[in-house]
Parts: sequence; C-alpha cells; structure tokens
Amino acid sequence: MAIPLSPLELLERTWRGEYVDADSVRRFVRSWLSDGAPDSQMAAWCAIAQARGLDRESTQGLMAALIGSGERLDLASLGATGDLHSTGGVGDNASLVAVPLAAALGVRVAKMSRRGLGHWGGTIDKLEAIPGYRTTLELGEFIGQVQRVGCAVIAHNPRLVPGDGRLTSLREATGTVANRDLIAASVMSKALAGGATALALEVTWGDGAACGTLEQAQRTAELMQWLAVGWEREVRTIVTAIREPLGRMIGNALEVREASDVLRGGGPADLRRVAARIAGELAEAAGVVAAGEGVTRAEVALADGSGLAMAERWVEAQGGNPAVWSTPAVLAIAPVGVPALADRDGVVESIDARAIGESVRRLGAGRLHPSQQVDHAVGIELMAKVGETVTSGAPIAMIHARDASLGDNCATEILAAVHVGVRAGAGDAATTARD
Amino acid sequence: MAIPLSPLELLERTWRGEYVDADSVRRFVRSWLSDGAPDSQMAAWCAIAQARGLDRESTQGLMAALIGSGERLDLASLGATGDLHSTGGVGDNASLVAVPLAAALGVRVAKMSRRGLGHWGGTIDKLEAIPGYRTTLELGEFIGQVQRVGCAVIAHNPRLVPGDGRLTSLREATGTVANRDLIAASVMSKALAGGATALALEVTWGDGAACGTLEQAQRTAELMQWLAVGWEREVRTIVTAIREPLGRMIGNALEVREASDVLRGGGPADLRRVAARIAGELAEAAGVVAAGEGVTRAEVALADGSGLAMAERWVEAQGGNPAVWSTPAVLAIAPVGVPALADRDGVVESIDARAIGESVRRLGAGRLHPSQQVDHAVGIELMAKVGETVTSGAPIAMIHARDASLGDNCATEILAAVHVGVRAGAGDAATTARD
Repeated sequence: MAIPLSPLELLERTWRGEYVDADSVRRFVRSWLSDGAPDSQMAAWCAIAQARGLDRESTQGLMAALIGSGERLDLASLGATGDLHSTGGVGDNASLVAVPLAAALGVRVAKMSRRGLGHWGGTIDKLEAIPGYRTTLELGEFIGQVQRVGCAVIAHNPRLVPGDGRLTSLREATGTVANRDLIAASVMSKALAGGATALALEVTWGDGAACGTLEQAQRTAELMQWLAVGWEREVRTIVTAIREPLGRMIGNALEVREASDVLRGGGPADLRRVAARIAGELAEAAGVVAAGEGVTRAEVALADGSGLAMAERWVEAQGGNPAVWSTPAVLAIAPVGVPALADRDGVVESIDARAIGESVRRLGAGRLHPSQQVDHAVGIELMAKVGETVTSGAPIAMIHARDASLGDNCATEILAAVHVGVRAGAGDAATTARD
Repeated sequence: MAIPLSPLELLERTWRGEYVDADSVRRFVRSWLSDGAPDSQMAAWCAIAQARGLDRESTQGLMAALIGSGERLDLASLGATGDLHSTGGVGDNASLVAVPLAAALGVRVAKMSRRGLGHWGGTIDKLEAIPGYRTTLELGEFIGQVQRVGCAVIAHNPRLVPGDGRLTSLREATGTVANRDLIAASVMSKALAGGATALALEVTWGDGAACGTLEQAQRTAELMQWLAVGWEREVRTIVTAIREPLGRMIGNALEVREASDVLRGGGPADLRRVAARIAGELAEAAGVVAAGEGVTRAEVALADGSGLAMAERWVEAQGGNPAVWSTPAVLAIAPVGVPALADRDGVVESIDARAIGESVRRLGAGRLHPSQQVDHAVGIELMAKVGETVTSGAPIAMIHARDASLGDNCATEILAAVHVGVRAGAGDAATTARD
C-alpha cells in the first residue's frame, strides 16, 4: 500500500467488509496508542470486530501493534521456560493448579496475568485473595524467582505490551471484552512478548466462555497457532468445554480454596483433569517430559504432593502465606451464607454458566465498571453439577455474600440458572459425574 | 426501571440484543453529552447501531436526548410554517429548489442544515458556494427573514439540539454516518426542535443513499412518522430512488448551477420532479394548497417564474449574490476540465452512485476527515444517465478538478462507475430518459 490509510478510511473499509492489510491495522492501532487517533475510533473498530469478527491479517496487525508498544522479555538463560494463558471462563481456576504442577515437572513457569474482564474473574484477582501475596514484582525479581523457585505469577508488567493495558481498559468500558479475535490478539501479544519458549494456551468454549461453540474454539486455537508462526515457540492449545462452571466454586478466595483441594489430591474431577492437561502439555512443549507422558506425569505430581510442595514454595517466595494450600481457613470468607434450596427432586440437566458468572459478578466478585474493587470473600459453591441428583428442600448451592439481601438475590438467580429435570433412574449419571 | 442502567450495562445489554427501554437510552446519551460517559462508549453504541440497526424505542431515546440537549424554536406566530429534511444522497440538491418553491406557494420555510457527511455533500456546503451567502444568522434574524421574505436556510444553530452536532462529529470520526436509524433520530431531532408545524422528509434509497432498498426506505419513513407522534406536526415523507446520482451535476457550485437550471424552468427531469414533489407535499401539509394539488401548483411555480423570484429574494436577503440563479457564471469553477471519454458505443445500463460520490469526494468536494475544507469549485457533470446512448470517444462526463492529475484519476473512476452495455435498438429508451 503506497499511501497509508487514514484512521477514518480504515474504519470505512472495515465497515464495508473490504480487505485491510495487517500493516495498515498495525499503523492504525499504533496511531491510537500514540494519541494520533481518538478513543472513539479505536472503540468503533473494536465494536466492528466484536460484531463481525476480524480476519487473520487484522488480528495479526493488532497483535503486532501491541507487541511493538513495549519491551520483550528474554528468558533464554533460564533453560526450559513455559507460560500459560487461557481465554477464560466462569470458575476457571485451572491456572492456579497448572502453574505449580508444570513447575514441579521441571518447567520454569514465568506467567503474567490480568485482572478480571466481563463475567469471569482473572487469575490476579484470585491470587490477591491470598494474604500477603505480592502481585507486583520488578522484572528482575520476577525472573530471579522463576530461576530460584521454579515459577512466578505476577500482574502484567506495564513495560511489556503496555498497549494491551490501554486496549483492555477501552474494551472493558465498551463491552467488547468477549470477542475471540480480540482475545486471541491480546493473549498472543502477551505470550510472545513474555519470552517463554513453550506456550500452553487454553481455549474455552460454551455459554460461559469467549467461544460459544467447539468449532469456534478450534478455529481460535488454530488462529493462535498461526499468530505464533515465525516466533520460534512450541505452542500447545488445549480446547476446554465450559458448558457449566469449571469445578464447584466461583469467586476469588473460593477458587483458591478449590485449587488447594486439587493440589492436595482431591477437588472436582473436571478441574483436576483440565489442570493436569495444561501442565502436562506445557511440560511436553518445554521438552522436560517425553511426548505423550505429560498428563500422566502431572497426575503423579498431584498424587505425590510434589505439585503442592512447589505451590507452597511459590506462594511463600512471593510473600504470601503458604498455609493457604493446607489450611484454607486463612482465606477470607464473606459473613453471610445463604443456601439456594431446590424446589423439587430431580437431576441437574444444565447449568447456565454465563448467568452464574453474571450473578457472582453482581455479588461483588467481579467488576461492573473498570475501577470497581473486587470483593475476594464472596462467591458461590455449587452443591450439584450436571448429571447429579438434587432433593427438594436441600441446597443446590451455598452463596457467600456481604449481606443477606445480596445473598437472597443471588440465590434466586442461581436457582433460575440451574435447570433441574424430573427424571427417573438418573442415579448412575450422578455417580459418574460426582468427584 | 427502578435502578438506571450504567453505560456499561446498557452497552452489554445492547451487545446481547436484549431489550433496552427508550428512557435508558435517553439517559445514556444525556450522560455522554454531559461528559459522564466517555466518547469510547458512545462510539461503541453507534457502531452496534450501525452494525445491527436500532429498535424504535432506542431510536426514540436517542432523539429525545438530542432534543433535550438544547432549546426548541416556537414559530407559532408565523402562520403556516414548514421545514424539510433529506436523508441525503449523491447529487441530491432538491432542497435548493424545494425551499423557494414551497415558499412561493405560501409556506414560511424555516430550514437549518448541516455540512456534508460521508460520500454526499450537505446543503450548507452547496449554499456556501454562492458568493456572499451567509449561512450563519442569529435566531432572531433567521425568524425575521422567514417572516419578511418567506424562507431562510442557515447552518444549524448550536442553541438547538447541540447534542446532534457532537454526535455528528463522533459519527464522522467513526464511519457511522450512514446508518438509517441514527440518521432518522438525527433528522427528527432537528425537525421537531426546529418548530415548523409542517414537515416534508425525503427518504432516499439506492446504492448512493442511506437506505439500500425501497423496503428499508419505507420502513425509515414509517419510523420518522412514528417518532413524530405526539408532537402535533403534519408530516409527509417522500421516498426517492437514488440508484443513479440525482440530476447530472455532483459537486457544490455545480449543484447550485443545476438548481438554477430547474428554477428557470429547465434542468434534469428527475431533479425537477423530486423538488416539485417535496415542495408540493410541504405546501399541502402546511395547509396552503388543497390536498392533491401540491405538485401541480409547484410545477406551475417553476413555469411562471414565481419560484425563481422567491429564490432571488431569499439569497439576496441572506447576503448572497441573487444573480447566481440567472447568471451561473458568478459561481466558481475549477481550473481544469477533464473529459471522461467512452471507450465503446452503447447504452448506459447503470451508474454506481456511491462510487461517483466517493470519487467526487476525493476530488475535494467532500471531506475525508471532519476538519477538511470543502472545495466548492470541483465536481463532475454527467453527460449520460441511465438509458442514454454513448458514443466511443465522446465524453460520458466532464470533470472539473484542481489539477490534471486529480482530474485524470477521477475520469478513470467515473468510467468504471458508468456501466455501458452494447445493446441494439435502445434509441427509444435514450429519448425517453433525456430531459
């Protein structure tokens, strides 16, 4: 393209569905980041992306502008390094388990993460529920801990892809956080700038996730692989269904508690499976375990306590109370417990993960506007998941709330989101799904 | 709604396609106008509107916020008052003729207008091509001229619907000027705040217009009628096809010249017909001519020179050179004339009005970014319209350009936009379409 497109020309071409090359998108985003194009133009572009999706080249152009907005880490001196990212989903706390598990297998895990977007929480919000845990480290301290301890997880450092922070704020303000192409560009900009040579990328799908369908998740996984071409990384994508919330707990401190159950060899089967898969794939990608053995080795590390030991060293190194994994009582819990009581006998046929996520967000566990403080102590425990039996008058869920009124509202919403069918002979299914 | 929606909640509901009541939209837009919500949120909302359309209640909420952002004129003392608006289209200069024509029939025409958006010019851009014409009058002066002379056309006064000016700037910057629901809200906010009791609203359709199809134009016309319910106005909607540019001239001074042809009893048949229809409907709506007689009376006013006489009084009262209507040579014309020559014999089968509009915009007649100055002297004259014969080597159009390079580019684009078919026996069609 001889003459660069003006921001308005680029927007008009995008509106008309005409081809725009990656470099023009990169220039447009860079122009916005350097205050050459106003927020309104970037917001409109994100909105078109959200309404219609982006093509690969536009996604690549966005990613390139984000990476180019800051520094890139060089972790070559650390040996087998790994990083993991997820497109996110309701109750998805698998990273809290997968990080120490992969580190226990010998991967140097260097992960940066963000706070929560939309109707699901972020890993950093969850870690901030751990008393004393420092989510902010200088880059040197961060790399030092990865080398010394085996892993570190910090809030995203603004020297890397600072443009993504600005873009995230804009997307939060404009309701454009859930588009999978924008998510792919954002995730890959962080993963590639982060410098780890092995990447495990979880792509979630279902009502409570960025991708609505399995096919969309597979396409997004392929897109992420494509975006990494030329960067000399070993990329594994893990496609996870989040048709109901992952695990049984939704809320920041509650999800840390649930992660501790898994690290101690128990916890919900679905969460354990996803965490072992991510850690195992990352260990294979990093070359520290043989191909095909990653998941088994991760499960052994859960069973023999080596994952737990690594989790304790990790949290302690980062200033947190390592007892969080063995004594969950050190975590805050909201003052009011309200049970959501089943109004019939039956079997849970489906759980609307999005509705659960929105309800927990309104309880205070997430943000309705970007500057809002998250309440780490609130959330819900699901007593019944899909396929399990419920009894009239018994709790389907326990709500942990700041006050009774918020708890009662949430209980009503949870009952509406858990669909109980009156079926005979569902006992087997219930047994199978129970962890 | 007990608790007003936050801007982000409103955006998220709109993204999900959920119902949002008119008052919530009104509050959201008002919040943006009073700097309570950032440009990015309003830009995202406009982009959703552009991508998917608005429902009636959201359109009404937007209109209400725009009207409520300023004062409303009271023209009750003037008698039969009228105002006219168009959704705009390439080469649509019908207002320049319809205003003095309706005034000649006895309607007190009080019209405010904007500069051009997107790929078509605005009435004010065209009037500014008239030497001396003052597009800015104080409101008292404006009303005084309507009463004394019979009509006045000024640039939109910021005391009325100032919010629409801000919204227009945002839409211009974000490529969201062409959505018909946003246009309907904007047009109706100006028409209702303007205070005239009779309204003639031209809704254009075709590739060069806001509505792509006749059905969309009819729905937009119905929407505008619905938005006026409760406001005690007599509203006439005129649906006009702009499948090829209206008339033969596109460009600001050229369109004034073409309007003068019509006012002197000649000019292109399509433009004359549309202008007479708008003026006639407005005169009927204002009650100054009997029902069913409006168009005939307007045509008589073209034939007997009373429309021309009114046009001269109008322009003179507003400081312009009244000779503009009888001596078009007082209008500026660009220094370079480049003919676009047909490369075959044949009949014009179609003309891509949008492509013509974009080409003339690039020539300088319109704006590529909002602060750009319009060049009044440039534009094109079409020598052949749909159904007319062309001869190889003879001009299809004459381009009036600032320099030869711009003119040559435009000629190439015009040839691509005028589709010439090689048909035998098309002489009749050509004769019929010729004015």
